[in-house]
Amino acid sequence: MTRHPLDIATQLTPAGEGRFEGQTSADYWNMMGPFGGTTAATLLKAALDAPQRLGDPVALTVNFCAPIAEGGFEIELTEARTNRSTQHWMIVMRQAGTVVATASAVFAVRRESWAHQPAVRPELPPAETLPVMETEGRNAWLSRYEFRFADGEVRFEPRAQDDPASAYSSLYIRDLPERQLDFVALAALSDSFIVRIFQVLGTFLPAGTVSLTTYFHTDAAGLAAQGSRPLIGVADSKVFRQGYFDQSAELWGIDGTLLATSVQTVYYKA
Amino acid sequence: MTRHPLDIATQLTPAGEGRFEGQTSADYWNMMGPFGGTTAATLLKAALDAPQRLGDPVALTVNFCAPIAEGGFEIELTEARTNRSTQHWMIVMRQAGTVVATASAVFAVRRESWAHQPAVRPELPPAETLPVMETEGRNAWLSRYEFRFADGEVRFEPRAQDDPASAYSSLYIRDLPERQLDFVALAALSDSFIVRIFQVLGTFLPAGTVSLTTYFHTDAAGLAAQGSRPLIGVADSKVFRQGYFDQSAELWGIDGTLLATSVQTVYYKA
Repeated sequence: MTRHPLDIATQLTPAGEGRFEGQTSADYWNMMGPFGGTTAATLLKAALDAPQRLGDPVALTVNFCAPIAEGGFEIELTEARTNRSTQHWMIVMRQAGTVVATASAVFAVRRESWAHQPAVRPELPPAETLPVMETEGRNAWLSRYEFRFADGEVRFEPRAQDDPASAYSSLYIRDLPERQLDFVALAALSDSFIVRIFQVLGTFLPAGTVSLTTYFHTDAAGLAAQGSRPLIGVADSKVFRQGYFDQSAELWGIDGTLLATSVQTVYYKA
Repeated sequence: MTRHPLDIATQLTPAGEGRFEGQTSADYWNMMGPFGGTTAATLLKAALDAPQRLGDPVALTVNFCAPIAEGGFEIELTEARTNRSTQHWMIVMRQAGTVVATASAVFAVRRESWAHQPAVRPELPPAETLPVMETEGRNAWLSRYEFRFADGEVRFEPRAQDDPASAYSSLYIRDLPERQLDFVALAALSDSFIVRIFQVLGTFLPAGTVSLTTYFHTDAAGLAAQGSRPLIGVADSKVFRQGYFDQSAELWGIDGTLLATSVQTVYYKA
């Protein structure tokens, strides 16, 4: 059985108490370093793999401190606090002894409760009626996903600065090769929305996420029930100012369950 | 000149390299501990006060690990990484040697750039036409703000579980006594939206924020320009499931500038 490239990219080897070693993956390479989604997934995996882990991830924040170079990295995992049903982790990624990313994760034992979903799921045409985005010859990580945009595919047709395009996108997305959904995959997917400024200005320019926060809205069983079916994703932005913009996203199960929401703040030069 | 209660609540005394001591404030007491907004503001203040601080806050994540008891606390501030124009901090709050909160903050030197604000500012009636929410006899922190709700004031009129109210609120809000806006005040304001489940179910029940992320969308000069005028705030939720719900908020300047956005994930028992 062949291992999925995401499992290879996020593989960690224990290296002492609370320490792990890993390797960046060419399969998920982005322009200047690894796709941020795999970095987020790898940091979360350190906590997921901890023997004393309690429950499922509820919140994950990843701060991208510096470009990550091709090659090895070390992860230091610190259990900040464990309560009866919640657990708090601090996670640091280093290369050659220097911090390249930090993260915090909140885990919780989730129990059935009163439930209510006021968010409105986007209406998209059936997936099979939408073309698969061409990823050939582009940054490698794009080929690890199947993108079928209903709205807001980045076209790289430059816009006048006083006539920006909408920052909104909606699409079907899934891992390639297909993969059962779990927290590792969902953490990576939460960063799979191409940075909004490329779409808004229709051009490539220097930009990079500095902080990403993802909330998970169901437990491991709720993710397993999604199987490998495509998710529905939407992304948008509220404000671009003084070199930083925000970006928010929703990831929906095909059955209408809101599985994850995320926000990120992104550096840009324009 | 009398010091503002927020400045007293967030006052830190240096206690060695990267260490500070502070005290909870009765002025901002909530049901079971200090108002989370003052905790967030205090953690941010440790980085704001650091002599090697670079630029202004862009992102702040606070994880509430355990109830904070009345009395003293210690803060440990770690400079994770400083680049040419960005800086990453990790911050831990302890009581009696035990972690009660963790945080990360991203700072950046912000420069003028192409700017664009696709978010739509809510339309509210003039502030003076809206009643000030009565806070007499309620948790102390509520009296440290002037709330004028246009929509979605928590009424504590219980709803049937199959007929929840909207989670949306819009209001004018400002510090009491009035105070010039800065990052400390804005960090606290970003947690000033009463937890949505009280409004949705119209009743008090066990609930508490476990993680809060705030993005700041302007620099210190942009905040100073707001003076002490009320801000416009909106809050909403997307999903309540398995004991946790999300809550998002926007804080707008009266001149139409989106100053901050935040998300939080909140534990509840219902």
